[in-house]
Amino acid sequence: MSASIASLDTPVAIVDVSRMQRNIQRMQQRMDTLGVRLRPHIKTSKCLPVIKAQIAAGASGVTVSTLKEAEHCFAEGISDVFYAVAIAPGKLAQALTLRRKGCRLSVLTDSVIGAQAIVSFGQQNDERFEVWIEIDCDGHRSGLTVEDNAIIDVARVLSEGGMQLRGVMTHAGSSYELDNLEALQILAEQERFLCVSAAERIREAGLVCPEVSIGSTPTALSALSLKDVTEVRAGVYVFFDLVMHNIGVCQTDELALSVLTTVIGHQKDKGWIITDAGWMAMSRDRGTQRQRQDFGYGQVCTEDGDWIEGALVTGANQEHGIITLGAAESANIVARFPIGSRLRILPNHACATGAQFPDYHACDAEGVVHTWSRLHGW
Amino acid sequence: MSASIASLDTPVAIVDVSRMQRNIQRMQQRMDTLGVRLRPHIKTSKCLPVIKAQIAAGASGVTVSTLKEAEHCFAEGISDVFYAVAIAPGKLAQALTLRRKGCRLSVLTDSVIGAQAIVSFGQQNDERFEVWIEIDCDGHRSGLTVEDNAIIDVARVLSEGGMQLRGVMTHAGSSYELDNLEALQILAEQERFLCVSAAERIREAGLVCPEVSIGSTPTALSALSLKDVTEVRAGVYVFFDLVMHNIGVCQTDELALSVLTTVIGHQKDKGWIITDAGWMAMSRDRGTQRQRQDFGYGQVCTEDGDWIEGALVTGANQEHGIITLGAAESANIVARFPIGSRLRILPNHACATGAQFPDYHACDAEGVVHTWSRLHGW
Repeated sequence: MSASIASLDTPVAIVDVSRMQRNIQRMQQRMDTLGVRLRPHIKTSKCLPVIKAQIAAGASGVTVSTLKEAEHCFAEGISDVFYAVAIAPGKLAQALTLRRKGCRLSVLTDSVIGAQAIVSFGQQNDERFEVWIEIDCDGHRSGLTVEDNAIIDVARVLSEGGMQLRGVMTHAGSSYELDNLEALQILAEQERFLCVSAAERIREAGLVCPEVSIGSTPTALSALSLKDVTEVRAGVYVFFDLVMHNIGVCQTDELALSVLTTVIGHQKDKGWIITDAGWMAMSRDRGTQRQRQDFGYGQVCTEDGDWIEGALVTGANQEHGIITLGAAESANIVARFPIGSRLRILPNHACATGAQFPDYHACDAEGVVHTWSRLHGW
Repeated sequence: MSASIASLDTPVAIVDVSRMQRNIQRMQQRMDTLGVRLRPHIKTSKCLPVIKAQIAAGASGVTVSTLKEAEHCFAEGISDVFYAVAIAPGKLAQALTLRRKGCRLSVLTDSVIGAQAIVSFGQQNDERFEVWIEIDCDGHRSGLTVEDNAIIDVARVLSEGGMQLRGVMTHAGSSYELDNLEALQILAEQERFLCVSAAERIREAGLVCPEVSIGSTPTALSALSLKDVTEVRAGVYVFFDLVMHNIGVCQTDELALSVLTTVIGHQKDKGWIITDAGWMAMSRDRGTQRQRQDFGYGQVCTEDGDWIEGALVTGANQEHGIITLGAAESANIVARFPIGSRLRILPNHACATGAQFPDYHACDAEGVVHTWSRLHGW
């Protein structure tokens, strides 16, 4: 189905295809220059045309956050899939089914108990799973620290149990808390150094550890060196968003995802414009709340995408958004933004906002809009 | 499809059908006693078996937040549908199509301009739309205040333009900010009194205004009198949630929606249990953040649903939840909540959490689980 933006009912999620393609090129070229493979995290888009554009630009395989994403990618011919969430033992049967069909699905663990579950299931089913060990490089979530001897224990359990240790991986999720290049460069080097060091510890113990996989969009775009890293995982760079803008890794004209909305009313005395994009459209993500600029539930732009300075979605109910303008601008809102007029909202967090929609409406350079479906659920 | 909870992969949204039925009975009986019709807001569940249970218990028609919900209900034989968001002029053609098929769809406006758009479109298409006027009873969002003469202007535009004024409606959304019965009773009476007064103003101007529709779950469960009100709209009562629990309108054993999750790891030194229910499962809703008890991203229960005191989802990434326990409890988490064990999470906001899932898994009194699909998107 193709259409124009003017013909779309609201709210809809619009992807600016030209911006998306530039974002894909930017990251791929950076990884090419730094001499590492790029394995995009598709949890941001969950959308096949986006993933295919990443593969076409040079990505080697994909990273997924659910086995449903893995199944979807494999069904479309993408075979090298890394499920980058420590696998629950109950999901091993589903992983096995995918591998038996020919998918090179690799899985993740960060504990001896998790490794033992993989070994036990693998041995019972005569399957040599490919397994990554998760390293904690910044204390923000999962993984083993490089000093923890459990790294060697996990590697040994997997290796002696007949599984294939694919490598070590880490994700510097704390990069989302930074907002200057120097701090990002330091964290990127910490992410690289600690993950490479973990691989070296395993190798020094006499075990094989072929790969070192690191990444987050902010560190991937800031790293000065990726020496001894084999691949980078990053996701949100494909669309970028206001959180990334606050971190400082993208410009406003690189934000490729927005929500088209219609004005449905006003509260003139309060300076409120009411729209049909509430939290069901924007998501409840308030990722910019503690950053250097709080964008509420999103930055308001004209229908054509021009940033309206000071105009933010400052309140959201399920199907109502409340937009307020800067104090100097709030006069005459009824005439300036009449009922039925349309606006575009840039989201805090592209992964969360995209997930609210069954599909994207992708607008190409000629203004033609294509409907791109996306995955929902597990 | 039927199954047992033990057979479900995680994360899944579980509906306790017995609790849901009790919640439906409780609200319906209260409305019956107060002598008003109940028009449930189906934006909470967006799920046909839930809606059918509400109708079976005595509800008269439904309230919807999107025209997609209206189409879905009408296709299933539910004809009296109130689309309770001020209608954008661009959606009138879709509303007309529904009415032409025989759906008694009514729409909403809160402005002269909005009313003129309805009149203009209605006259062009020879359709006498049924229209409600939105009243602002507490300043929280949309609507005209009872003192505003625009109420009469809107009613006159509709009436003289040949549309049918169905009535006035309001929603005391600020009830979500309260937490004691006396304050809720006062707000409920304010909601009732102001909406009834708006109807009287219109009638005194010589215009017909048959209905007075009010409601929110907290005020509906607190009102002492609903004199001169014709119908109540409420939604979240069907499942309740932690926000409603903090407001004080439900007990813990009335919470009918939970998310089943699996433990996938630990950070022992920090007392963290890592699960596979991140914000993609729970939503980013932090509705209890400014209430009397902040439940983080949810209250943790055993797999059977028993509340684990002090155990909260305190952090969430896309597919990772971080659970922390009270200080006294955090020893021995690895043995107590081993990898692969399962927990149930009660959500802050049932409407937002439900929306993350393509379907509910409804567990009946016999422990049999049925898959109930739900609507996604617009």
